[in-house]
Amino acid sequence: MTDPAEATAPLPAPRVDGERLVARLTELRGIGAAADGGVTREAYGSADVAGRDLVAGWMAEAGLAVEVDGAANLIGRRAGTTGRWLASGSHLDTVVDGGWLDGAYGVVAAVEVAAALAGRPDARHGLAVVAYANEEGARGTQGMAGSRALVGQVDEEELATPDDDGVTLRDRIAAAGAEVARHDDAAWDLAAFDAVVELHIEQGPVLDATGTTLGAVTAITGRQALDVEVLGAANHAGATPMELRHDALAAAAEVVLAIEALPATGAVRVATVGHVTVGPNVRNVVPGRVALSAELRDEDAGRLDAAMALVEAELAPIAEKRGVALRTSWGQRVQPTACDPAVLAVVRRVCAESGRTWTELPSGAGHDAQILGREIPMAMVFVPSRGGLSHTPHEDTAPDDLVAGAQALLDAIVALDDVDQPDPTTEDRP
Amino acid sequence: MTDPAEATAPLPAPRVDGERLVARLTELRGIGAAADGGVTREAYGSADVAGRDLVAGWMAEAGLAVEVDGAANLIGRRAGTTGRWLASGSHLDTVVDGGWLDGAYGVVAAVEVAAALAGRPDARHGLAVVAYANEEGARGTQGMAGSRALVGQVDEEELATPDDDGVTLRDRIAAAGAEVARHDDAAWDLAAFDAVVELHIEQGPVLDATGTTLGAVTAITGRQALDVEVLGAANHAGATPMELRHDALAAAAEVVLAIEALPATGAVRVATVGHVTVGPNVRNVVPGRVALSAELRDEDAGRLDAAMALVEAELAPIAEKRGVALRTSWGQRVQPTACDPAVLAVVRRVCAESGRTWTELPSGAGHDAQILGREIPMAMVFVPSRGGLSHTPHEDTAPDDLVAGAQALLDAIVALDDVDQPDPTTEDRP
Repeated sequence: MTDPAEATAPLPAPRVDGERLVARLTELRGIGAAADGGVTREAYGSADVAGRDLVAGWMAEAGLAVEVDGAANLIGRRAGTTGRWLASGSHLDTVVDGGWLDGAYGVVAAVEVAAALAGRPDARHGLAVVAYANEEGARGTQGMAGSRALVGQVDEEELATPDDDGVTLRDRIAAAGAEVARHDDAAWDLAAFDAVVELHIEQGPVLDATGTTLGAVTAITGRQALDVEVLGAANHAGATPMELRHDALAAAAEVVLAIEALPATGAVRVATVGHVTVGPNVRNVVPGRVALSAELRDEDAGRLDAAMALVEAELAPIAEKRGVALRTSWGQRVQPTACDPAVLAVVRRVCAESGRTWTELPSGAGHDAQILGREIPMAMVFVPSRGGLSHTPHEDTAPDDLVAGAQALLDAIVALDDVDQPDPTTEDRP
Repeated sequence: MTDPAEATAPLPAPRVDGERLVARLTELRGIGAAADGGVTREAYGSADVAGRDLVAGWMAEAGLAVEVDGAANLIGRRAGTTGRWLASGSHLDTVVDGGWLDGAYGVVAAVEVAAALAGRPDARHGLAVVAYANEEGARGTQGMAGSRALVGQVDEEELATPDDDGVTLRDRIAAAGAEVARHDDAAWDLAAFDAVVELHIEQGPVLDATGTTLGAVTAITGRQALDVEVLGAANHAGATPMELRHDALAAAAEVVLAIEALPATGAVRVATVGHVTVGPNVRNVVPGRVALSAELRDEDAGRLDAAMALVEAELAPIAEKRGVALRTSWGQRVQPTACDPAVLAVVRRVCAESGRTWTELPSGAGHDAQILGREIPMAMVFVPSRGGLSHTPHEDTAPDDLVAGAQALLDAIVALDDVDQPDPTTEDRP
């Protein structure tokens, strides 16, 4: 019954189903949706689980064997002929009142890649499509908990740590329906993976501002958290002469401006003070205490180290001049991760041959890919974020760009399947 | 049974009972007390009412006729021989986690004055000892609600306005046990009063820093409230390049420093930003919105006006440079009130003859006396605040200073009783 001609003719290049991609993202947007267009699917919560269940069905429909591992990662697999693996995915959880594309896009697109390759001759590599658990760090947790479990970086202590609501990570994972007793079995045989590629919206303004459709990511930024406590003296705002004040807020204002000014010196790519609490925080009392939460980001770990020293040097004279105490506390460091030269070369070639505008850029946001990228050759593909907006209900990307990104991911997976060791010497330039 | 010699011999100068004064203040401190030494008696609440009940008993013990008026002011009266009146008092309510002396000292000392004068020949002036209701502005209310009612400045609209907890001022007054239906009857026949004198801790560092026991207050500061809303653009702290940011917090930091710098130009005595809220206020998001609550204080209304124009001029370039919106909203103005020259002259003479160190100074804090002082000749006496601290659990004054202040108040009331029109030409100087 088989037509011999059909069996030997080259198959047309696989294409993603763009309409279905956008329709599925829209359907997923309805889970945890708010009236303002925002989406809230906090990791391990009921909306997150409902989103995972929806996507699990699409994975099965694409012919993948579906599993929820002991870390609550949702994984769909199809084996290849060589025992080697490729992986692609992102996350389904969101920040509170976040957007519809952050994470979800990379997962649904990877499912479309699997669907586009279903029914074709066996691939050399197996394909693992992953929705990593708790990328965002719900309820004050560390974040990227699922991808870190895949590389064995979530320990017993972290599993036993309560979140902002007093619930341990272990109990959260169990409540999400995962077999947390098998948490440590979630770790992958990393040596069996030849590449991991994550597709994501940029979450920044570069592609949108330049009218560029595709971004080949060169590196994922590192991030150094910083807390600054400013201790002055609370006092009556009417009765305390200016020269006798130790105003913690005025000192904190100088700290905010000193941190903001760091990137202009070339010391670090971006620096942000995002969180402020003031005590006692009433109009008619000179503030006695301010707590600032800040972060520095750069693609170079050495520059982050140097910037930390610069911050200390900038803050000391502020404390001295104002007679306040400035206590710095250097928090979590997420090390920067360079993309793999060979896998990046494949992404560059795919972008160059896509017929779309493209460029290279670093990722200023953190991604699960940077966790896996320390163990597996890694690259990322970006599409524009309208207005550079992300983590807000206004987060959006043109449907045509969403389809173009998914197709680039498909093309990259196909190209990566052809070789055991991609060639890093490809000279494609944006 | 009367000894004729005793009836004609001059009475010794009246003295306050210093031990009882300090003991009563200590007893009052126990109502609304926290473990850290702080006191919370929010106006109209149960602790405030309990404090009022305690003091009402002391008033009766001093031979005063006690009333709670329709505005929840506690008033103890003893009539004189001429139909003219003197008044003294302060308030019993506190800020949240405030100190034991702010307000309470002036009330308890005035009760001691009345007690020291009990049993002596009839005074020419009647004496009204007052605990004004809600000086502090509990739960977001305007404050000085009791003293403003005495001069007819609390209208139906204010009575119907809900506080931060959604309860109207009318219902608060009723809940405190006052006949709020008779609120408007609380207004005094102001023309019958020849003087009002308020004794208070300084709430600032001047007397304490200079080792001075008594302060003759020259004027009570004016106060202009200011709200500044800073509208920038919230965005991803990792993915948004510095040059594309509209960081509302960094702009707000410049506003804080601009407002703080005003007094150094001589434009205004003090300027304070006391309250800050940041949105969304998370470490990894560039702040999109900041609200600042600030105030300017000066003893000259014209300088307050000029300083307002200066603030607008300082803020405009910050908005321009940073591409943010800066919206100023000028709130409540409490006009400065000069002390009455003649009553101040009496206070100066009392201070000069007290054998204590003394000085003249303006009041940087607002007081009920400034409300009454627009209608009745007014003066104030200050004693030191240790370390200049007030509105905190650490608020304190040496017992000896507390007694010296109460005695000065007593001496001033005695001196004021002697004359219908005090002589402002007294030349006592500190």
